[in-house]
Amino acid sequence: MESPSQALIELLGVVAYGELAGFFRIAADAELAPSMAESIRMAELADIEFRHYSLISAHISSFGVEPEEAMAPFAAAFDGYHERTKPADWFEGLVKAYVGDSIATDFNLEIATLLPEDSRAVILKTADSTSHIEFAVSTLMSGFALDSRLRGRLALWARRLVGEAIAQAQYLAAEHEGLFQLINGTANSSAVGEESNEVPGLDLGRAFIRLTEKHTHRMQRLGLAV
Amino acid sequence: MESPSQALIELLGVVAYGELAGFFRIAADAELAPSMAESIRMAELADIEFRHYSLISAHISSFGVEPEEAMAPFAAAFDGYHERTKPADWFEGLVKAYVGDSIATDFNLEIATLLPEDSRAVILKTADSTSHIEFAVSTLMSGFALDSRLRGRLALWARRLVGEAIAQAQYLAAEHEGLFQLINGTANSSAVGEESNEVPGLDLGRAFIRLTEKHTHRMQRLGLAV
Repeated sequence: MESPSQALIELLGVVAYGELAGFFRIAADAELAPSMAESIRMAELADIEFRHYSLISAHISSFGVEPEEAMAPFAAAFDGYHERTKPADWFEGLVKAYVGDSIATDFNLEIATLLPEDSRAVILKTADSTSHIEFAVSTLMSGFALDSRLRGRLALWARRLVGEAIAQAQYLAAEHEGLFQLINGTANSSAVGEESNEVPGLDLGRAFIRLTEKHTHRMQRLGLAV
Repeated sequence: MESPSQALIELLGVVAYGELAGFFRIAADAELAPSMAESIRMAELADIEFRHYSLISAHISSFGVEPEEAMAPFAAAFDGYHERTKPADWFEGLVKAYVGDSIATDFNLEIATLLPEDSRAVILKTADSTSHIEFAVSTLMSGFALDSRLRGRLALWARRLVGEAIAQAQYLAAEHEGLFQLINGTANSSAVGEESNEVPGLDLGRAFIRLTEKHTHRMQRLGLAV
């Protein structure tokens, strides 16, 4: 196994911690569910986050790096996001799980293109299915049918979630120059490892537009894009 | 697939809900962990509970029964137990996870002997390893080395956990006659299905003694049996 670049470990650490924090938060928000059946759907979603975390954690370990060490620099940003966006009720929890899980999947698909093949394969496994989150869409649509004011409230909530996520992402980018360079394709070969010459980096502006477009499309589908 | 007896579905339901409630509670109690590494050990433990739940839930579904329906009659007892035994700190959470997970494993091993072969195989899968809980023992021993008063406090806590668990088990047995009959070996063939003639039932008194002895042995190992 080649020695990984610091930037690669950072990128794996940020994705792993995002999945781990998502696991804890979704498991906790399942308590907001109105019935056992719905709390089980949330538990299933939490479990998928944990499996994603486990895959990436094992991959980090395979480089001889402690997963906790790789994740530690990113804990404050994710914990801060979750602290600032505690759902007040079941529907807010559903929107948060849906928005967060979907953006994480899109983000992972974007960064996968930057990675050496073995790391790319691991990250792609975390993005191979979105069917588990579809219950959130159908449950929200049922809720909208019963409460005409719910949509407006949740549209504001979804915007707040994205605003907080962007704020935390900017904080992370400012604090972690190597990570930012890897994503932006401006890292030199010592920063990204031997395969760096093959790695073009993301055009961050275009990647951001793609992530935003996909998010907007999902919000439109729910009637939450106002 | 033969039609399952009502008592079998009840037994699977009670075990499934116990694992599901354990998943939620351990995931929540992970927040008490003093470090990320320890919260991850708790998350791993929660994930194992969820996998056990998933196995039993799928088995219940294979009989054409909704898992939620099979579990619903037992939710109040488990929820009541967890509500009455919220850990006040990390060490209480560790003891609770250790005591609860271990007794559940012992209980599953006892009842597995009563079940038709396919159900027995599923239940035995939930009891095939206890290595994941060993971190609780080593973490507690480290804690005892640092704080001489911790042991006495946790010995009282462990007794309270067992007292609450027994109270809830008695409540369940009184409310669910069929379940009690299956365990006690007094059910007739219509209650336990075609294989009932081969099923001797547990000698409940002896089973209780075995569960208690194993629990006491674990507490002695921790120096918590006073």
